[in-house]
Amino acid sequence: MPETDRPADLAITDVTALVHDADGAVQFLAGATILVRDGLILSVSTEDAPAGVEVVDGRGQVAMPGLINCHSHSPMVMFRGAAEDVSTSDWFNKKIWPMEVNLTESDVTLATRLACAEMIASGTTTFADHYFMMDRIADVVDETGMRANLGWTYFSSEGDSGFDRGLGFALERNGSASGRITTSLAPHAEYTVDDDDLRRTARAGLDHDLLVHIHAAESRIQTRQSRALRGISPIQVLAQTGILDGRTLIAHGKGIVPEDLPLLAAARGRVGVGSAPKGYLKVGEETTPIRALVSAGVAVGLATDGAASNNTLDVWESMMMTSLVQKYVEQDERWMTARQVLGIATLGSAAAVGLTGVVGSLAPGHQADVILIDLSGPHTQPIHDLAATLVYSARSADISTTIVAGRVLMRDRRLLTVDLGATLDALAPRLAELTDTTHGKSIQDYGF
Amino acid sequence: MPETDRPADLAITDVTALVHDADGAVQFLAGATILVRDGLILSVSTEDAPAGVEVVDGRGQVAMPGLINCHSHSPMVMFRGAAEDVSTSDWFNKKIWPMEVNLTESDVTLATRLACAEMIASGTTTFADHYFMMDRIADVVDETGMRANLGWTYFSSEGDSGFDRGLGFALERNGSASGRITTSLAPHAEYTVDDDDLRRTARAGLDHDLLVHIHAAESRIQTRQSRALRGISPIQVLAQTGILDGRTLIAHGKGIVPEDLPLLAAARGRVGVGSAPKGYLKVGEETTPIRALVSAGVAVGLATDGAASNNTLDVWESMMMTSLVQKYVEQDERWMTARQVLGIATLGSAAAVGLTGVVGSLAPGHQADVILIDLSGPHTQPIHDLAATLVYSARSADISTTIVAGRVLMRDRRLLTVDLGATLDALAPRLAELTDTTHGKSIQDYGF
Repeated sequence: MPETDRPADLAITDVTALVHDADGAVQFLAGATILVRDGLILSVSTEDAPAGVEVVDGRGQVAMPGLINCHSHSPMVMFRGAAEDVSTSDWFNKKIWPMEVNLTESDVTLATRLACAEMIASGTTTFADHYFMMDRIADVVDETGMRANLGWTYFSSEGDSGFDRGLGFALERNGSASGRITTSLAPHAEYTVDDDDLRRTARAGLDHDLLVHIHAAESRIQTRQSRALRGISPIQVLAQTGILDGRTLIAHGKGIVPEDLPLLAAARGRVGVGSAPKGYLKVGEETTPIRALVSAGVAVGLATDGAASNNTLDVWESMMMTSLVQKYVEQDERWMTARQVLGIATLGSAAAVGLTGVVGSLAPGHQADVILIDLSGPHTQPIHDLAATLVYSARSADISTTIVAGRVLMRDRRLLTVDLGATLDALAPRLAELTDTTHGKSIQDYGF
Repeated sequence: MPETDRPADLAITDVTALVHDADGAVQFLAGATILVRDGLILSVSTEDAPAGVEVVDGRGQVAMPGLINCHSHSPMVMFRGAAEDVSTSDWFNKKIWPMEVNLTESDVTLATRLACAEMIASGTTTFADHYFMMDRIADVVDETGMRANLGWTYFSSEGDSGFDRGLGFALERNGSASGRITTSLAPHAEYTVDDDDLRRTARAGLDHDLLVHIHAAESRIQTRQSRALRGISPIQVLAQTGILDGRTLIAHGKGIVPEDLPLLAAARGRVGVGSAPKGYLKVGEETTPIRALVSAGVAVGLATDGAASNNTLDVWESMMMTSLVQKYVEQDERWMTARQVLGIATLGSAAAVGLTGVVGSLAPGHQADVILIDLSGPHTQPIHDLAATLVYSARSADISTTIVAGRVLMRDRRLLTVDLGATLDALAPRLAELTDTTHGKSIQDYGF
């Protein structure tokens, strides 16, 4: 039979599906059947599933695009809770960077398995990761069935070797894991990577069509310090070094100031910002100026940062936090409505990680990355406004099923591709050594 | 055998127990056995459980005092999501108060059952409720096995009948449900109840040793308006009318200003403030000045308000939000640590609802209101800092078991005293009429 007539190989039946209208606004289609073929969405309709196809019965559940974590350091789950109630400077210099000296490749493998278990269980299907030993992380992404954009962090303090390793990894692994892995260049930040390295990063990004994933304008303090030291803001540094000429994912962006907006607006369609509001509250800092960014046409996506600061890799939690914190900082209860933040969680986050048209939507031709949310619990009943129920009442524990590229990774809350018990058993004897800082070494110094 | 030698009738075994030291600081006792007799905590120790006693096996779980919701309007779960993305004034005048005209006693019964299901499932064992038709709520508290402090809301616009009904209810039901129900006088607020009614409320509270539960200084706008209209703050109104001479539970207190602190400090030991930070973010308003209150020796407790504004009755969520929001507003990552907010969730909240020595602690002689938290999920592993794991990583869905007065109300996540399905089925046909506002009536007018 002709290619277009081949039957679906998976049907998700009897769901209320989150779809987008022509303007990208969030809508819900009740009584929907989602058909999947070769890992892609074939259709979302109210027609019955054809006979003979594998069925995921979603009766009474909501189906939506899998969540996208736009900025994470996934193996840092091994340090969850190991650096609490300290200043940001002490968090880096006395805790995290000395502890990261202890990492072995085996630790990164185990911790990434744990992180993937947490993300699959909480409905994340794609994550943009920025860390070390990324080849081990890529292996775990492959084995667990997740989708990820991976970048190997580098500092200029490493000399050429950091950049070279990062570029080599990006070229080698881009498109691997049946296309589920894309890669990025991952200079740590504009204050730990010098202008020459940023310039060659920008060139390499353009030459190889790679995303550049970088911490920038992480706080207003950083922006003030950058202006004091060199007269320009961190975003101006990105513009002057050519980073904003290519595809760019900015982590945090809390220190983005009004003069940065024209630079970012000029790069719209290529530049995105990942925001992780829970951790910002926790360190007593301002949040990402999402309203200004969205007004400038810049894509904004949801993120968790690492679990050493955020304590979870729960994008669902980030979704609620983003809505609540935005309403608070803008002092406007009519801004960042539930539907708006569902838009950010789907199309916005896909754009931020450079995957528009690939993930973040249930429209035909997109990857079949789908989650089912069970709203039968007392905390999500009754339902007067489904968007509000999802954002303000539901929590990630209500996610029952997680599907990536048409493959079911969690079904009825049972993880199918990670052995959590074995992972924790293997990690347990390493915990004391992992958090030891008595060696006095550090991977880097944090100057703020 | 002598009274003190009678054996326990329930043992909760093999838990890590949250206990308090002599200064009230939170500590954890690993490998603990909690013995219960006649609904009270008999002991918390590392000794084995005696033979023949009923056992709740808590292997690998954390046991802590049941959560206390210091301010709720529990039946408002029926309006969950029915008044979203509107201004505070429209929320009251165009949505909630017109919708509340539609309430029948049967609606209140059904909605309170749903609320109790949600609270039991999320680890709340005591709630301080402020609403209408409280006799129906009291019946549901009795039937579900929960503990509550209940006050029947009144406005001066009702004439004498509101006050009389509130006092009558308080006297009739205080100590009912085997002592699990205590009562309060519940004037709505100092701007809807006039000074004469506040004065007789204060006198009746003292005469009958009843808590007065009142919305006061709900926002800085209210405080400004009170000063403009009558030259004094809402807390000064409470002081001048004698309310602060007795036991008082203030809901929200976001508009408490520095000049109020000496008045509240003078009432310490009798006065508490319930804070519900999620809803404050959602309406874009400031939060309760908890640091100033705690410094003044005023008890602060966790609350959810009603689910029409907060979307959940999840005190666990309030606990995390309180820590995060406090760190943010004080711009101090070392304030409101995980241990501090666990203190507020336990001893602080018990004090705020006037139940010090009765609930909020696993110390011998306290009510056996205990919850078990399962930390085996990927999002709560590994554990480097148990307090941080509980507050920043765990969520209410991790609560497996809820016990009130030694009676198990939820076991292994199965609700034992509420038929959720039957409750939702009975509520469903009422939803359209409940949210109808075309009748043009309202229970009250909100002037802010």
